[in-house]
Amino acid sequence: MLLSFCEATGKTLNLYYSQREAMMKLEISIVLLLCTWTTLGEEFKRAKIAFSATLSASWDSVYFGPHEEATTLVYENVFTNIGNAYDKNTGIFTAPVKGVYFFNYVVFNAGEKPTGVKLLKNGNLVLAALDNAPGQDTEDTTSNSVSLILEQGDQIKLQLLESRRIYTDAWRRNTFSGHLLFTL
Amino acid sequence: MLLSFCEATGKTLNLYYSQREAMMKLEISIVLLLCTWTTLGEEFKRAKIAFSATLSASWDSVYFGPHEEATTLVYENVFTNIGNAYDKNTGIFTAPVKGVYFFNYVVFNAGEKPTGVKLLKNGNLVLAALDNAPGQDTEDTTSNSVSLILEQGDQIKLQLLESRRIYTDAWRRNTFSGHLLFTL
Amino acid sequence: MLLSFCEATGKTLNLYYSQREAMMKLEISIVLLLCTWTTLGEEFKRAKIAFSATLSASWDSVYFGPHEEATTLVYENVFTNIGNAYDKNTGIFTAPVKGVYFFNYVVFNAGEKPTGVKLLKNGNLVLAALDNAPGQDTEDTTSNSVSLILEQGDQIKLQLLESRRIYTDAWRRNTFSGHLLFTL
Repeated sequence: MLLSFCEATGKTLNLYYSQREAMMKLEISIVLLLCTWTTLGEEFKRAKIAFSATLSASWDSVYFGPHEEATTLVYENVFTNIGNAYDKNTGIFTAPVKGVYFFNYVVFNAGEKPTGVKLLKNGNLVLAALDNAPGQDTEDTTSNSVSLILEQGDQIKLQLLESRRIYTDAWRRNTFSGHLLFTL
Repeated sequence: MLLSFCEATGKTLNLYYSQREAMMKLEISIVLLLCTWTTLGEEFKRAKIAFSATLSASWDSVYFGPHEEATTLVYENVFTNIGNAYDKNTGIFTAPVKGVYFFNYVVFNAGEKPTGVKLLKNGNLVLAALDNAPGQDTEDTTSNSVSLILEQGDQIKLQLLESRRIYTDAWRRNTFSGHLLFTL
Repeated sequence: MLLSFCEATGKTLNLYYSQREAMMKLEISIVLLLCTWTTLGEEFKRAKIAFSATLSASWDSVYFGPHEEATTLVYENVFTNIGNAYDKNTGIFTAPVKGVYFFNYVVFNAGEKPTGVKLLKNGNLVLAALDNAPGQDTEDTTSNSVSLILEQGDQIKLQLLESRRIYTDAWRRNTFSGHLLFTL
């Protein structure tokens, strides 16, 4: 009978140890889950980047240009700037994380002069939206959009082309918007 | 020997209790994981909000306006309405959750009259897309887009400006689209 | 005393078995968590689909059309193509997963001819962006955008309308972009 007690207790202890191993495995699983969860949570949190702005906060008619050289347009009237990636003092968007970003901008043209706004990535032309003088048709709108892969720190800005003019007023027809689609 | 049995059994019981504590910790971890996971899952699920519609379901030429007052445009021909946040009977989008939403709309102008469509948030002007009478150039397109922070229940709609006209037909050149970028 | 040992050991074993059940429940919870996590992770990974391209890689002026029949436009100059869902040899986007996709395209029109580009889903017209000959106003831009529910394998392409012309050059004013908003 003592022997059976020995055996019973021994078994219990053995089972206890194998059970402890099982529990360690469970603990490791949970730690791994927490790690991946945290990674996902961080990615989810970091993915909240979006800005949108118009060219002028003024309700009056404002003209920019023409200038002899291309000039960065500062969209000072900010609707949205989650993530603070857009600088309303410089007009420059700086990617906070590597990812794919979607940009859309709209250019309104009024009157007798041509307009033109180009989108630059780190100072290099990506694309543009141009319109000649509307002439008799005194108002026109142009726009462009693009999805770009940006490394952390890459910069996007819009520039008014040399010798072109842009007009804005209370209707806020000149807009510049961008947001992260997903991280890479 | 009995003593050693006592000790052995006692240890087993002690270990059992500390093990039970460890298991309780594991259980708590899992409950926390399930909670955060559910939150994320809910956020993920709630984030599925997108609509897209055109002004008319008709394949014939249709004119709206001019009216003496600004009139809400009802984009009745719905392509997509995941989340049912857009009401095709009223033309109003109501934010189901707090978040940042991207909106884009396109306005086509034909003929001898000016057009103009403004985007309102809770009845207040955000921005607009206008075009004068194209004159000799009998067709023009204008558009605008914006990302906006909306509280749950905030409403977005498009209105035809007073004394302006909008034309639509089977080409579906007048569109209104919006989607949630992320919750806040 | 032996009896008390029997009882003690018996209790331990009973507790051990109920504990083993508890551990099995924990293990099942963790497996379920891992499954849902993997699903989410996969959904997160699959959701990384975005393309953006312009009509021509050339820096020279290029005209397409007019043709007697509608012709698929091949936007050959690819900015972004995460997920490889856009084929730059055919101009066709094929949905890799069921979901809601946002598309935006911009059409530039120069000179004395009308332009027009339609968006097709599996060969059927969804919408279009057209512009007549700008006439005296020799440049115009038109665009359109839409969010569409696509099944896996659904195809989206842009076609130049019959008897219409499109012009492109180094300014890259003709763009075609699309991305997955969320899976369904």
